[in-house]
Amino acid sequence: MEPVLRAIAAGREAALEELKAFLRIPSVSGDPARRGEVRRAAAWVAEFLRGLGCRVEVLETPGHPIVYGEWTGAPGRPTLLTYGHYDVQPEDPVERWTSPPFEPAIREGAIYARGAADDKGQVFIHLKAAEACLRAERRLPVNLKFLIEGEEEVGSPNLEPFVAAEVDRLKADAVAISDTAMLAKGVPALCVGLRGIVYCQVDLQGPATDLHSGIFGGSVANPANVLCRLLARLTDEQGRVAIPGFYDDVRPLAPAERDAFAALPFDEAVYREALGVPALDGEIGFTTLERRWARPTFEVNGLHAGFTGVGSKTVLPARAMAKVSMRLVPDQDPDKLVEAFEAALRRLCPPSVSLTVTRMHGSRPWLMPTDHPAVQAAARALERGFGRRPVFIREGGSIPIVTTLTERLGAPILLLGFGLPDENAHAPDERLDLDNFYRGILTIAYLYRELT
Amino acid sequence: MEPVLRAIAAGREAALEELKAFLRIPSVSGDPARRGEVRRAAAWVAEFLRGLGCRVEVLETPGHPIVYGEWTGAPGRPTLLTYGHYDVQPEDPVERWTSPPFEPAIREGAIYARGAADDKGQVFIHLKAAEACLRAERRLPVNLKFLIEGEEEVGSPNLEPFVAAEVDRLKADAVAISDTAMLAKGVPALCVGLRGIVYCQVDLQGPATDLHSGIFGGSVANPANVLCRLLARLTDEQGRVAIPGFYDDVRPLAPAERDAFAALPFDEAVYREALGVPALDGEIGFTTLERRWARPTFEVNGLHAGFTGVGSKTVLPARAMAKVSMRLVPDQDPDKLVEAFEAALRRLCPPSVSLTVTRMHGSRPWLMPTDHPAVQAAARALERGFGRRPVFIREGGSIPIVTTLTERLGAPILLLGFGLPDENAHAPDERLDLDNFYRGILTIAYLYRELT
Repeated sequence: MEPVLRAIAAGREAALEELKAFLRIPSVSGDPARRGEVRRAAAWVAEFLRGLGCRVEVLETPGHPIVYGEWTGAPGRPTLLTYGHYDVQPEDPVERWTSPPFEPAIREGAIYARGAADDKGQVFIHLKAAEACLRAERRLPVNLKFLIEGEEEVGSPNLEPFVAAEVDRLKADAVAISDTAMLAKGVPALCVGLRGIVYCQVDLQGPATDLHSGIFGGSVANPANVLCRLLARLTDEQGRVAIPGFYDDVRPLAPAERDAFAALPFDEAVYREALGVPALDGEIGFTTLERRWARPTFEVNGLHAGFTGVGSKTVLPARAMAKVSMRLVPDQDPDKLVEAFEAALRRLCPPSVSLTVTRMHGSRPWLMPTDHPAVQAAARALERGFGRRPVFIREGGSIPIVTTLTERLGAPILLLGFGLPDENAHAPDERLDLDNFYRGILTIAYLYRELT
Repeated sequence: MEPVLRAIAAGREAALEELKAFLRIPSVSGDPARRGEVRRAAAWVAEFLRGLGCRVEVLETPGHPIVYGEWTGAPGRPTLLTYGHYDVQPEDPVERWTSPPFEPAIREGAIYARGAADDKGQVFIHLKAAEACLRAERRLPVNLKFLIEGEEEVGSPNLEPFVAAEVDRLKADAVAISDTAMLAKGVPALCVGLRGIVYCQVDLQGPATDLHSGIFGGSVANPANVLCRLLARLTDEQGRVAIPGFYDDVRPLAPAERDAFAALPFDEAVYREALGVPALDGEIGFTTLERRWARPTFEVNGLHAGFTGVGSKTVLPARAMAKVSMRLVPDQDPDKLVEAFEAALRRLCPPSVSLTVTRMHGSRPWLMPTDHPAVQAAARALERGFGRRPVFIREGGSIPIVTTLTERLGAPILLLGFGLPDENAHAPDERLDLDNFYRGILTIAYLYRELT
């Protein structure tokens, strides 16, 4: 490994400049006006892979393109498929960023930009690891396939059909994904569980137009009042979700796993302070880590109705809208729960407003056995990269591709996250710790060897 | 009256052109950027009054100016004070207007523009009535005072101190205000009751920044979920307000008044259809008119939290905001109720979010005896103007000046509304029926005589 390690060390400065160029592209997949920028990010990834000597294709979809690259110069050796995404979340509220979201800035040992942690920075770790190995040794101990998509932040609508159609091409002995976080600075982690999600929009329509709340108030249902009443009824005072049947398929946490979670170096006071909340809160009877990783939730992600500007307007709004999502754990089923959700709303909704529920995206929860040889190989690679044996954790977020690849390829999936929990993925001032960035490159270079 | 009637008839076309000029001024008092436009509307009113031969002053306040004018050429005769406002509501959502809000357009016998009904069009009725009488007869049967303010839509913060300081100057035998609606087209009405209001903003702060709802969801309170739960608890399934003590001071409707309301030509099916609601809704045990005029309400006027754009964003919002108002009836007290409201929220709010309640404005409810001589004079004037005896109604909205003038001047107040209930005050496509506009001018000209 010596030549590889030297190549990685020598390339540190250059790597940072390249990463900045990647982060400067505002590849917001949810914004139709940024379609061209999203394509530019795809082209950037494709160009980098070509530079490594990969066979590369930029595959069109009805949405944003998929970048596929492969290096198959190690016949007879295992194949590692790396999945990642080059698209990013919207940058709003943009006024809350310390430096502009698409002008990467280095501060306090981290690089700040939309996509730094989720997921361009982590994709780039894999690109640089492969590059270092190839530059140092002109070959790799494994075959590599890269599947880098541009629609992860909008629910990957075109990835599932692509994977279904290209199972042969994508075949691999293991899949590596870096789109999660370490447990804490200095504590590498291997994520073996993810929550699923269903995301819906709820629209209530009352009167045909906004009304004067004095002249008409009291005689018609106010959609904003009704929306609050409906959503309030879906959770209870114990922090539980009150949709009938919601917990029916939840697999209880094994006592051993609860013990393992409890043994993790996790300080609730530090966590509370980092998030800046007056107090932690959640489902009664569970710890913070259990609530985040292994218990389902019902979250209101957005609310809008009536007048929201400065000052007052005495309006009875015609419409009220909520974006809501449920995080799911094994063995909850997204289809079943979105139906239960809509049925609960319909039962609660008065006839004086019209209710529309729009399902936006969903994915199943996922769990991986910790004694799988590929998981153990990844654990060894992390130990070499970070100088400390990783912990096995779960993650509260959803990565739809994980369930898709599990179902389609049957390969073990390795979630090697190099982000940190407080790096503001999906929020202003997103960043990636630079030490973790370099250690991530080392880890992936080690992973190629450990898998053989 | 013949010369006056001829002057009014001859001036119809010119009146419309003048009104358009007035409506073109975007005098949105709640928008700091429109400060200059608000002043321009004040100057327009002052100029018109000077043209009538009034002594006019444009009086500065810490906010927008008050226009005061008086014509005192009828010594020994009664004095009528006319109150109105030249400021208007914000025009948003501007994309829902058929024609631009500040480009007055005539369609189907009505003039469409922000302020057409509330209140520039109705103020202008009084200006034109005085003008017609003075042109035709060079004198008036009464003395006139005009008090036209520019902050009604933001709660008239500077009017109360002005009135308090200028009680002598404002002294009058009756006050006329046209800022309400007729019961229906062809049914003139004299409004003898108004609901009061308190308007508040509620802000909840959870985490310091927006969080990823997957990574953190379940372990901290979501301010949007909490906001829904808090607001939902303030109303019940019977359409009643659930704030403790809310109904303590409500004066029950007298059986005679319930009978009078029930006898009014009001068709619930037509009303429902005009508003475009699937069904009417409100407090159990009361009719639609009772709910609008004589029962208190709790309305959510605005909601905002998290991501509200197109698509989905898996954010756990840092903040959630609601604008809420309570409509009050005799003898509810705004101060007492805003305290009860805040206390109820504080009792319900979990320690995991920070709650801020900001009181924005308020006014007391008001009632006027129908057998008062001035009320009877106004009823005769309406009968002459519209060819039909008016009905006595109440109004669900709030006109803070009514309570202020009642308390400070002790004069009877005549609410002669020339708008229609479906003319979209505070909403897109606000308008004023042109027939009512002309009949309004006639009515006010008759009122001067009936008051003597």
